[in-house]
Amino acid sequence: MDINALKKIQYGMYIISSAAEGKMSAQIANTVFQMTADPVQFAVSISKQNFTYELMEKSGKFAVTAISEDATFEFIGKLGFKSGRNINKFEKVKYEISAAGIPVVSDFATAVYEAEITNKLDMDTHVLFIGKVTDMKIIDDSKNTMTYDYYHKVKGGLTAKNAPTYVKR
Amino acid sequence: MDINALKKIQYGMYIISSAAEGKMSAQIANTVFQMTADPVQFAVSISKQNFTYELMEKSGKFAVTAISEDATFEFIGKLGFKSGRNINKFEKVKYEISAAGIPVVSDFATAVYEAEITNKLDMDTHVLFIGKVTDMKIIDDSKNTMTYDYYHKVKGGLTAKNAPTYVKR
Repeated sequence: MDINALKKIQYGMYIISSAAEGKMSAQIANTVFQMTADPVQFAVSISKQNFTYELMEKSGKFAVTAISEDATFEFIGKLGFKSGRNINKFEKVKYEISAAGIPVVSDFATAVYEAEITNKLDMDTHVLFIGKVTDMKIIDDSKNTMTYDYYHKVKGGLTAKNAPTYVKR
Repeated sequence: MDINALKKIQYGMYIISSAAEGKMSAQIANTVFQMTADPVQFAVSISKQNFTYELMEKSGKFAVTAISEDATFEFIGKLGFKSGRNINKFEKVKYEISAAGIPVVSDFATAVYEAEITNKLDMDTHVLFIGKVTDMKIIDDSKNTMTYDYYHKVKGGLTAKNAPTYVKR
């Protein structure tokens, strides 16, 4: 088993955000994908350690922001490597509260999506949430959504410990 | 809801293959993801219409090939747009039968993986299979795994009707 083979799987880079009981948070995720076409359903894998996970469990809702290639390292670092339990991740970040009451980040975004959780699969360290997409729009179609590969190769990015794709060295 | 926003989600391009009861098949998939890091588990979304789905259900095993950017349109078309019920998809395709008895395609590959199905989630038109990775290796690290975006923009590729990401026009 060559663990380096895992690097040959392609992902996009996304922000997952949620809110419940007057609190809101967001995190970086790379495992977002469309599961079915009719209705449109997304799957996202979230670590049970993350504050966003708690808010998703409580509210049954989440938003997804597809991050553009021009997103700065600082922007990703702020959203991805600290816990929303301790800091306000939305400070100096452009977002709006949707009709469903979820913060949707539109900074460095190619597109945004909102979903209602319809199912979930317990994966021990992570939970795979299935969400029916209730709203979606393009923010900037002229830009590509950042791939994980681009993040590593061009941006020199790191992987957070709670990521599904974290590899212990 | 702007359905075009779905195009801003990034995917890789993969071959999923399986075998059971003396038959084997393969198909193209774009929804392959690492779900957990310890143990390494993959998730793949497969249409119930596909022959590979039947073989995965019967054998409980599958292989994944990450397709390189230099894969030809003919190669992808052969594996992706016809059913393994009617044609032999492995004719003139480089593959080997693994110790677990599964055909693993190594043509136009950056890496290959083998997995045992540990869980699944019924998504109506599709099934999300969770598989524990039992073997993996890099075939060609000098090449990038083709993204779905690359397939569309550079290769001018089409989307099969049974794909999770198919959009009716």
